[in-house]
Amino acid sequence: MKILVVGASGTLGRAVAQHLGERHQVITAGRNSGEHRVDLRDDASVGALFAATGRLDAIVSAAGSVHFGPLDRMTAAQFDTGLQDKLLGQVRLALIGQHHLHDGGSITLTTGILAEQPIRQSANATAVNAAVEGFVRAAACELSRGLRINAVSPTVFSEAWDAYADFFPGFEPVSAARAALAFQRSIEGVQTGQVYKVW
Amino acid sequence: MKILVVGASGTLGRAVAQHLGERHQVITAGRNSGEHRVDLRDDASVGALFAATGRLDAIVSAAGSVHFGPLDRMTAAQFDTGLQDKLLGQVRLALIGQHHLHDGGSITLTTGILAEQPIRQSANATAVNAAVEGFVRAAACELSRGLRINAVSPTVFSEAWDAYADFFPGFEPVSAARAALAFQRSIEGVQTGQVYKVW
Repeated sequence: MKILVVGASGTLGRAVAQHLGERHQVITAGRNSGEHRVDLRDDASVGALFAATGRLDAIVSAAGSVHFGPLDRMTAAQFDTGLQDKLLGQVRLALIGQHHLHDGGSITLTTGILAEQPIRQSANATAVNAAVEGFVRAAACELSRGLRINAVSPTVFSEAWDAYADFFPGFEPVSAARAALAFQRSIEGVQTGQVYKVW
Repeated sequence: MKILVVGASGTLGRAVAQHLGERHQVITAGRNSGEHRVDLRDDASVGALFAATGRLDAIVSAAGSVHFGPLDRMTAAQFDTGLQDKLLGQVRLALIGQHHLHDGGSITLTTGILAEQPIRQSANATAVNAAVEGFVRAAACELSRGLRINAVSPTVFSEAWDAYADFFPGFEPVSAARAALAFQRSIEGVQTGQVYKVW
């Protein structure tokens, strides 16, 4: 398969690109690195990406940031940064990307454990991840031509554990390589509208 | 209690204001009607609303619109309208409103059945409602001073059934008056971080 991985320079994206690359043709893209540069916050940039890649069998997003901060000092503008980035950015990739997939192709987005299990300062992260999962749940019902869409929801990564352990008390980290398996399940499997939890 | 109901002129808001008004002091607000005018998309407008109401015991939102449309023609800009309105609008009301509540006060937002059960053209509605529920789930863990936050998730209203029946095949409509009971449960009850489903 010919697979686009956006956010391929991050901890997760690198592991996904490496794992999928063992069996597939992987094209990497990212905001500041990868074979193609793309800004998921911009329609034209996403359109140009697909013009450059040509038609694909699968689109993977491991991209998007959210706002972390205490609720009692959070502003709507800060909250909107996560909406525009990890939520609308991934939605934009899917909305535009659906028209650049071969019949039977798939889209796999990234959410995270915070969708269900909040931590301190995660109001934005929880909302954004839950929204991406909602989008996947609904979009799966409407996609045509045998297209599928799923999400992968990893817990905190062992690669990032030193930096984030204090925010995830008692959480069990997983390797990004283990999370990458879930992307393979989404792409090579048959399900749609699913959230693959890696925790 | 002194309770602010935003979106008080809508089908749901009217029923909530009427039901709560039997036992409490209700202050109504809305985009185009009510005792106070407020634009939930604007920090300054929301700030002015709370300056006008003074300190409250409960804040209710029955406000916010989303984008309905076919997935294969949906644009990111259309998707963003729902994010800015029903999602960020209600989040803004909560973020600013938390500082204008008496100790032990509550915030109750509105989501909807589409969060869990998509219909045609509901990709934005499902995402937005799921996000509001995620925000409530996380914010409840961080609120101080005994403040609580919940959501009410109604199904389609019998008052709107003639207009929407074709989009909700086999759904069982409920009256807005029945949904209003869930707001009373949220406000007068003890729970936090809950989604009260009225379906």
